[in-house]
Amino acid sequence: MIQAAIMGFGTVGSGVAEVLDKNAAVIARRAGEPIELKYILDLRDFPDSPYADKVIHQFETIESDPSVRLVAECMGGVGAARNFVRRCLAAGKHVVTSNKELVAAHGQELLELAREHHVSFLFEASVGGGIPILRPLTDDLGGNVITDICGILNGTTNYILTKMSREGAAFDAVLRQAQQMGYAEANPAADIDGHDACRKLCILADLAYGRAVLPEQVPTAGITSVTAEDMAFAAAAGLHIKLIARAKQLPDGRVWCCVSPHLLPGEHLLASVDGVFNAVLVHGNAVDDVLFYGRGAGKLATASAVVGDLIDCARHLDRHKDIGWAAGDGSYLAPVDALPQRWYIRTAGAPLSGCTVLPAAVPGQSACLTPPMPRAAALELPGSAPALSIFPVLE
Amino acid sequence: MIQAAIMGFGTVGSGVAEVLDKNAAVIARRAGEPIELKYILDLRDFPDSPYADKVIHQFETIESDPSVRLVAECMGGVGAARNFVRRCLAAGKHVVTSNKELVAAHGQELLELAREHHVSFLFEASVGGGIPILRPLTDDLGGNVITDICGILNGTTNYILTKMSREGAAFDAVLRQAQQMGYAEANPAADIDGHDACRKLCILADLAYGRAVLPEQVPTAGITSVTAEDMAFAAAAGLHIKLIARAKQLPDGRVWCCVSPHLLPGEHLLASVDGVFNAVLVHGNAVDDVLFYGRGAGKLATASAVVGDLIDCARHLDRHKDIGWAAGDGSYLAPVDALPQRWYIRTAGAPLSGCTVLPAAVPGQSACLTPPMPRAAALELPGSAPALSIFPVLE
Repeated sequence: MIQAAIMGFGTVGSGVAEVLDKNAAVIARRAGEPIELKYILDLRDFPDSPYADKVIHQFETIESDPSVRLVAECMGGVGAARNFVRRCLAAGKHVVTSNKELVAAHGQELLELAREHHVSFLFEASVGGGIPILRPLTDDLGGNVITDICGILNGTTNYILTKMSREGAAFDAVLRQAQQMGYAEANPAADIDGHDACRKLCILADLAYGRAVLPEQVPTAGITSVTAEDMAFAAAAGLHIKLIARAKQLPDGRVWCCVSPHLLPGEHLLASVDGVFNAVLVHGNAVDDVLFYGRGAGKLATASAVVGDLIDCARHLDRHKDIGWAAGDGSYLAPVDALPQRWYIRTAGAPLSGCTVLPAAVPGQSACLTPPMPRAAALELPGSAPALSIFPVLE
Repeated sequence: MIQAAIMGFGTVGSGVAEVLDKNAAVIARRAGEPIELKYILDLRDFPDSPYADKVIHQFETIESDPSVRLVAECMGGVGAARNFVRRCLAAGKHVVTSNKELVAAHGQELLELAREHHVSFLFEASVGGGIPILRPLTDDLGGNVITDICGILNGTTNYILTKMSREGAAFDAVLRQAQQMGYAEANPAADIDGHDACRKLCILADLAYGRAVLPEQVPTAGITSVTAEDMAFAAAAGLHIKLIARAKQLPDGRVWCCVSPHLLPGEHLLASVDGVFNAVLVHGNAVDDVLFYGRGAGKLATASAVVGDLIDCARHLDRHKDIGWAAGDGSYLAPVDALPQRWYIRTAGAPLSGCTVLPAAVPGQSACLTPPMPRAAALELPGSAPALSIFPVLE
């Protein structure tokens, strides 16, 4: 019997408690022995919860109880979460988390601390919710040089873009609807401005390339600039618009990262990933393309990944799982213009010269695809009018 | 520096040598130290190979060399391969393999032997080629009760069905063409009769449900009975025909397995998996649906999975990776009629009564979809003529 604690009893934390309870038999078989939930740390009380008797309010109860070997951090944020995770690791407890903000900003520091104290710090749930992606990337695909990672990593924005595409609706209207249905937060900035996708991309790049890539180093654009007109031009040309987070190793070894709306041809593997679903397309120099697809968020899907990490820790109680990446100054990162791309450009009036013109879709406007070139060059193409929209094309 | 040996220098074995060589730097980073290829066992000589100096002909050289800690079995078959794997495990060497026939038939015995000798026996490459699926299933999704596994697990048959669908060609003609292009073996029985897909399904079911499922216990039909007429009816109705290998846990806990051509609606996640690609759709009671997609065969893709397993062994040299399943008499397997399904039935003449009639596609014939029922009942539906084809529908 291995004792575990959950920190934070919100959506993910309550999902972890539920999965540990409901699937106790299969978890015990996988872990080698039962995992028992001893404490749930939260500021609130939950008198109606079946786990009410496990709720505690003092972090020190967990920290000072040597029987607790496993801790699932499901609080979110980088304040108390970071402090508590540090103290749990220092107390010799294995820690797993779903907190992408924490891992993207402080993962390297926390992995170092885990190494010092000979415990594991795992975070499969921080990228792609329930989709297995971090362990496959580092373990199954560990024999590959990873040359490209393209992901649809944020369900809220993918839901909004899918609705805009299907209904021809404007961004603001769909966002309001998504908020009413609970698919978007009251303050949606982290999602719609691309920060959530950027954090997840950083974690993927950290693991794939072994050096820290920090969110502030990644050029990031969200979906607020995607209009119903862009959707109309894309649809008329058989193209899809998706928020793509991409990390690519250039031939010179530098790593190129970007989060932006992209135009995708209809036959692209990511083009048909719709609604709240997430997908990650990984290209390795041995395995070629591999796609991972599933629910990128949600109570039980995210809990599935947290519990998978708890089982991994339980099977390796006496050792440290040696994942991690080097700290870095970003000198190995390539600027966004180091990768020539084709660009979708929408303008008022006639199309730009030297480009492939898309079928007419909006009166008085035109759209085209440029040849491969840096963004700055695309914006200087001779033409009738300034760009109303400009997005890269994912080939 | 960890010494490794490859047994069998055919397509997969030579791919493993190439990946170990070309990706040595990233492999050393993942494994914690370099993996050096010391021996390649084969009956033949390869004077023109860059690895010619490593080729040996005596298995005993590997068996008796204590410096060899890792062995990749890439010979195929269940004769010498089984013998050599047993002897390697008994000699305290970790063994990885791409040999699905060996694992499906003798996996439980070999895992027992590995446990006795405190080494690992891993076989990620045996299912889905380079696609990470076994480790994600047991590790990442280890907190789930796996309720359904549906896979397109054989690239040859998927290539043939895709060509038949796109070109309206007959099975025999496409098979000959696939043989000429090297996508099908001179003796294609293991592929086209469904045995290869069945072996892979057994391995997935063994791991998901923890009890041995043997190939001879799984009702298996190949694709030789799929005709151009079936393709025509399917296309007219927006349906796809795929060889699906499926394992499902029924509500009473029994496991239901089957390999058969299935009809899939166009929007099904597996419907657009075309050509030589493979995909596995897993449903867990926490994670919901997860899809894994990629190249199910090929030299470097398969080698990618073999090398991933070698790295896993290298990171755990001093311990046994505790995967496995119990031996079994098959008493927990449900007969095929325990799962009522809808059936596609093609007949000469008028459609069967009580069924959904598909659009006309072949003069003098009709096709329909039955309500959910056992196969035996579907074959007894009142109608104009005996069934020319009958396949289940994957919902």
